[in-house]
Amino acid sequence: MEKTVAVVGATGAVGMEMVRTLERRRFPVKRLVPIASERSRNRTVNFRGQAVPVEALSEDNIPAVDIALFSAGADRSRQYAHLFVGKGAVVIDNSSAFRMDADVPLVVPEVNAHAIKAHRGIIANPNCSTIQMVQALKPLHDAARIRRVVVSTYQAVSGAGRRAIAELTEQTKACLENRPVECDVFPHRIAFNVLPHIDAFERNGYTKEEMKMVNETQKIMEDDSIAVTATTARVPVYRGHCESVNVEFEKDISPDEARRILADFPGVCVIDDPANNGYPLATEADGDERTFVGRIRRDFTVRSGLNMWIVSDNLLKGAALNAVQIAERLFVQ
Amino acid sequence: MEKTVAVVGATGAVGMEMVRTLERRRFPVKRLVPIASERSRNRTVNFRGQAVPVEALSEDNIPAVDIALFSAGADRSRQYAHLFVGKGAVVIDNSSAFRMDADVPLVVPEVNAHAIKAHRGIIANPNCSTIQMVQALKPLHDAARIRRVVVSTYQAVSGAGRRAIAELTEQTKACLENRPVECDVFPHRIAFNVLPHIDAFERNGYTKEEMKMVNETQKIMEDDSIAVTATTARVPVYRGHCESVNVEFEKDISPDEARRILADFPGVCVIDDPANNGYPLATEADGDERTFVGRIRRDFTVRSGLNMWIVSDNLLKGAALNAVQIAERLFVQ
Repeated sequence: MEKTVAVVGATGAVGMEMVRTLERRRFPVKRLVPIASERSRNRTVNFRGQAVPVEALSEDNIPAVDIALFSAGADRSRQYAHLFVGKGAVVIDNSSAFRMDADVPLVVPEVNAHAIKAHRGIIANPNCSTIQMVQALKPLHDAARIRRVVVSTYQAVSGAGRRAIAELTEQTKACLENRPVECDVFPHRIAFNVLPHIDAFERNGYTKEEMKMVNETQKIMEDDSIAVTATTARVPVYRGHCESVNVEFEKDISPDEARRILADFPGVCVIDDPANNGYPLATEADGDERTFVGRIRRDFTVRSGLNMWIVSDNLLKGAALNAVQIAERLFVQ
Repeated sequence: MEKTVAVVGATGAVGMEMVRTLERRRFPVKRLVPIASERSRNRTVNFRGQAVPVEALSEDNIPAVDIALFSAGADRSRQYAHLFVGKGAVVIDNSSAFRMDADVPLVVPEVNAHAIKAHRGIIANPNCSTIQMVQALKPLHDAARIRRVVVSTYQAVSGAGRRAIAELTEQTKACLENRPVECDVFPHRIAFNVLPHIDAFERNGYTKEEMKMVNETQKIMEDDSIAVTATTARVPVYRGHCESVNVEFEKDISPDEARRILADFPGVCVIDDPANNGYPLATEADGDERTFVGRIRRDFTVRSGLNMWIVSDNLLKGAALNAVQIAERLFVQ
């Protein structure tokens, strides 16, 4: 029953979490094959107390593995995923390369695990900000049918990778010491600032990140009638995406019903105790596998509406954990 | 034509900006009377190159001034504002104490300057996050009638005062040096975090800050049909509130029309050039008197809707500048 597992992009922020998550969840790994770009050739990855050498990604050297977890960017996924499939692997791809392809399942296991079985070698892991949102929306949609969602995000820098994490630290130090700030990963200073800009702009004025939240939500929820409009922003937080989510429903649903329904949904934890300053926080979601929901209250401006605050670790449920959970559904359960 | 001006709370974050703004805008000040609590008794305030001694606020010692700019918290406004009015002053109050009182005008000069003349001694300065929002909403409402607004804020710590600014710096240093973080002003760590909690919680699950955006918007815009629902969050930014604002209109309005209308409105500056990473930023609004609007794009989920990103310096247009502008309308123009 043990499987050979490749992690492509193993030295990146998400890849490192994929390796840790495989270990933490005792995924039945026969052999781990960490793969990264040429410049990571001499590095190793720690797995189960061992230093496993990183292999260089190359078309001439595609290993035969059972599962390949990809998190090396959309270009590399487009170039290499099919080669891994050709060697017999199921690819679980964390990039945006195949997410909207009709023959590629886009899966959040708690929401649409059934879609996995239709795969033809590639299964796509959704965008981080979409995963945590649909995890909270799905049970509410089943209960009261969602008409429209207006979401604004507060996204951590780790979603932009390891260099972005280092840039936040460097810029923060520079600000505190009154030194000039250098921008490399982000187009403007992120330290003590907010950037309403994640991924590239499209012609309609939205960013790709915003359109992912629109399109991926409909695909995962399997309901094109759910209207979503999104504004995505980067905040100076290391880990944990926050989302302010306004939802209009077809049927009436009270905050208490919503709390009860959410508390029963797998992977969701309700923290909603304003009297004791209890609400989801990025710092408390950091390192936690769950998606936290709170600040649930009626939106009085529509017939049936709720506002809520959704937080999850973007590197775990938003990326590595969700990918490993897909692998578990495929091979373990 | 010169006036005697008291600034009550002159050593606070907003009070200091009030003094600077009076000087920068060459308000015709005959004599400045900086007033603060007992513990600031031996301090001075710099005004036009002079160190002006701070007087202690006391019921036994209310000075006779023409204008009193209050920014010392709602409790002090409730206790002292009428005493200043009794001595002949017009009080422009930055606290929430009187904002919703029927006989107190609540004024953003570009939006409803005409309301000033009905005052009976007290004029209220709106909440920071409301001021910048209504400044952008007003011309759009006049053009296409606003039905509903869904707003999520990204608010700077300076809105919580000088101790909050110091707390962000201290906590940030502690995080970078792996030292334990101390929370005093905020209920949770604000460094590298987001707190969906500004001001106290009300029984309906909203914070007072959120309800201010609902109620003050309707009062300033003089239209109770404008439905507003708000989620307000604190981000680790020193100065400059950002707002993600979704607006549904009665009539059709295109992003281009909105840009044109906003660019013509006093105090508003449109920065909307995604191709060159041009959008409003807290760091660029810091120290600027204008309110910046960008990321203007159609919301495709409603018949006529726009998303936009509104940023302004919360201590200037959001507080000190707006108060001084009210004083200018009263006495200068």
